[in-house]
Amino acid sequence: MEGDPTLQLRVFDLNCWAIRYLSKRRQERIQLIGDMLRQERFDLVLLQEVWSEQDYNDLKAKLGGCYPFSHYFRSGVIGSGLCVFSRFTILDTLLYQYSLNGYPYMLQHGDWFCGKSVGLVIIKISGIIFNVYVTHLHAEYCREKDAYLPHRLVQAWELAQFIRHTSKAADVVLLGGDLNMHPEDVGIRLLRGWTGLRDAFAEAKHFEGCKDGCTLIPSNCFTIKTELLPFPLGIRIDYILYKAISSFTVKCEELRTTTGSAPGMDIPFSDHEAVMATLHIRRQGEAASATLSTAELALVDVVTEARTEVGVGLRAAQRQRYSTGRLAVLALLLLLLQAAAVLGTLAGLGGQPFPKLSFSLLAFLAIGILLLATGLHLFHTIEVKMLQGTEEQMRMVLRALQERPSDG
Amino acid sequence: MEGDPTLQLRVFDLNCWAIRYLSKRRQERIQLIGDMLRQERFDLVLLQEVWSEQDYNDLKAKLGGCYPFSHYFRSGVIGSGLCVFSRFTILDTLLYQYSLNGYPYMLQHGDWFCGKSVGLVIIKISGIIFNVYVTHLHAEYCREKDAYLPHRLVQAWELAQFIRHTSKAADVVLLGGDLNMHPEDVGIRLLRGWTGLRDAFAEAKHFEGCKDGCTLIPSNCFTIKTELLPFPLGIRIDYILYKAISSFTVKCEELRTTTGSAPGMDIPFSDHEAVMATLHIRRQGEAASATLSTAELALVDVVTEARTEVGVGLRAAQRQRYSTGRLAVLALLLLLLQAAAVLGTLAGLGGQPFPKLSFSLLAFLAIGILLLATGLHLFHTIEVKMLQGTEEQMRMVLRALQERPSDG
Repeated sequence: MEGDPTLQLRVFDLNCWAIRYLSKRRQERIQLIGDMLRQERFDLVLLQEVWSEQDYNDLKAKLGGCYPFSHYFRSGVIGSGLCVFSRFTILDTLLYQYSLNGYPYMLQHGDWFCGKSVGLVIIKISGIIFNVYVTHLHAEYCREKDAYLPHRLVQAWELAQFIRHTSKAADVVLLGGDLNMHPEDVGIRLLRGWTGLRDAFAEAKHFEGCKDGCTLIPSNCFTIKTELLPFPLGIRIDYILYKAISSFTVKCEELRTTTGSAPGMDIPFSDHEAVMATLHIRRQGEAASATLSTAELALVDVVTEARTEVGVGLRAAQRQRYSTGRLAVLALLLLLLQAAAVLGTLAGLGGQPFPKLSFSLLAFLAIGILLLATGLHLFHTIEVKMLQGTEEQMRMVLRALQERPSDG
Repeated sequence: MEGDPTLQLRVFDLNCWAIRYLSKRRQERIQLIGDMLRQERFDLVLLQEVWSEQDYNDLKAKLGGCYPFSHYFRSGVIGSGLCVFSRFTILDTLLYQYSLNGYPYMLQHGDWFCGKSVGLVIIKISGIIFNVYVTHLHAEYCREKDAYLPHRLVQAWELAQFIRHTSKAADVVLLGGDLNMHPEDVGIRLLRGWTGLRDAFAEAKHFEGCKDGCTLIPSNCFTIKTELLPFPLGIRIDYILYKAISSFTVKCEELRTTTGSAPGMDIPFSDHEAVMATLHIRRQGEAASATLSTAELALVDVVTEARTEVGVGLRAAQRQRYSTGRLAVLALLLLLLQAAAVLGTLAGLGGQPFPKLSFSLLAFLAIGILLLATGLHLFHTIEVKMLQGTEEQMRMVLRALQERPSDG
């Protein structure tokens, strides 16, 4: 490719929905994904929800010939689920775990246990340094009353900050992943505004795939139809975003998505559709980042909006911190009262002794509540701190944006 | 300072030992520290163990005049304890929380609850971009049998990786903090080898302070004398490290430490001694990073050594994961057995019913053990994953180092 003024890069992104024991026909689908990747020979493959390291190892064994380089990002109890396969040498990696990621007691929404993160791999192709990010943000379980919005916004903010701080020596930045946000949501506007990343779907010269680029569609046999009722076409929550940092330009020549069942197969690869982009990278004289300043006014608006949402989450977390703290204190008081009663009875002060079984059951109950409430209190204390920290960072950025002399 | 070819920067670093309710004469010391900082007018102040946000706010109020810019890094239940005061505008910040940091059940060693982290602030002085890092690594409670060595090594590695990935656009990198490692320890050799950072104490033209630059000394009235028995002079665990990345050179003109009690005071500022460096930064033609390649052979050795220690920690964590898992299974079996006995009695199969009190106490005990063991099992699962991840990254680096053609 050396000497060719335009570098073509084919990128594949998919949330594989490979939860052991829970995801339907997982092993079969992982095999199908492996076969397709081997056949299609992309340059770069970004996968999410590969929760089982065994599945990763199976893919690695199968893809070793055409994607000799790969990385699996470990994190949390279950893992981050993130991995990357590459035709080109992976020079370095780094994982950043988001500081907030749902609640440990929301067992039915297992996000907390996954240690949601963003993974970075650095590759160099024909002398061009690519910082490639893969991530998966907290799921949205109920769009009408989205209790996780502040957490997802903190994640979007930390993702943007991580990309900004680690990509300064890169020529091209690529981000692929399941962002769990619709294109017009405040989180994705924040991410794009603060990093300058462009949306491959919006920029693509040619598009082929689901209408509006949707990646969660009713016609996929694994999606939950009731969740998609308000969106007859489906929703777009999986993205490939990119930008050139130094004297390069990136253009999206083509964007494709899968459309439910894989060709010639009776099942789709996943409950999500894959996103496939063909990018053209070309050296040019002028840096492309100049367009950012014109968008600064819009950025002030979106950071303000995000900060408001983070503030809402902060107040909710403060309320929960208070009520769990109060519960712990009450349980402690009950225990102390019981201890006093026992001491009183032992000293011969009281009248009849209590019925032993009920008394010890009550004590155990109080201990249980004390431990649980203390744990929750500590957890919500962390939550409050992280939301406060993010709000403060956003305030700092807003001040800097407003003070900066406009160059637009 | 514009136009002056040499920029002088005075940096102050101190572990403030400001634990609410536990640290002796905390408020008095925080006041003393504030007074001294106001008087001395450093350019940059890096503090650790400022656990109470109130203490930070007090310092901020007092120092607002001479250090108009400051940042407090929030993290974990208690906080990261890290903050920075600066004479120059803080342009941006980022916090990276270490993936491993001791054990939640080691309550007497509270490290886990602190969310140990590295904080980054970016400042620009006379057009020179400084990436300033402040951190505090896991304490070493017993040097002979240091159970936390693998965790501290993972932290040293993550610190080095974080610095490498975020400092690529910086002209000068500064790191200050309590690294809880002696100068010859594998962790600090790893950190210095992998980042190219230089030790201000070793490089200083003039030094004034405790012998060997120690920062935890027996003559400080707050140190625990028995812990320092094997080291009559004390130990050096607080550092200011630096390097120039682009076409700059950094030289340490002078390094000082406090020596126990503050001048004219009856108490020291902290149980640690402060480290104060005067750095001279100058633009030059040639980048200073060329010296790194000559040190590559030594780096291979130190990464290999660190990887061995991480492997030891990994096997210990795997054993603990296994034994806690077995305990959880046993508790579950006991509960199932009890349930079967109850069902048997209800169905009229068994003979005499069990004594109710002992039976329910046993059940509660089993539930308690089950919950505890499951929690520990999950925790050690995370530990295993993070140690595995670090070991793999180190292996990747070793391979890259060994494959690279020597330019030394």
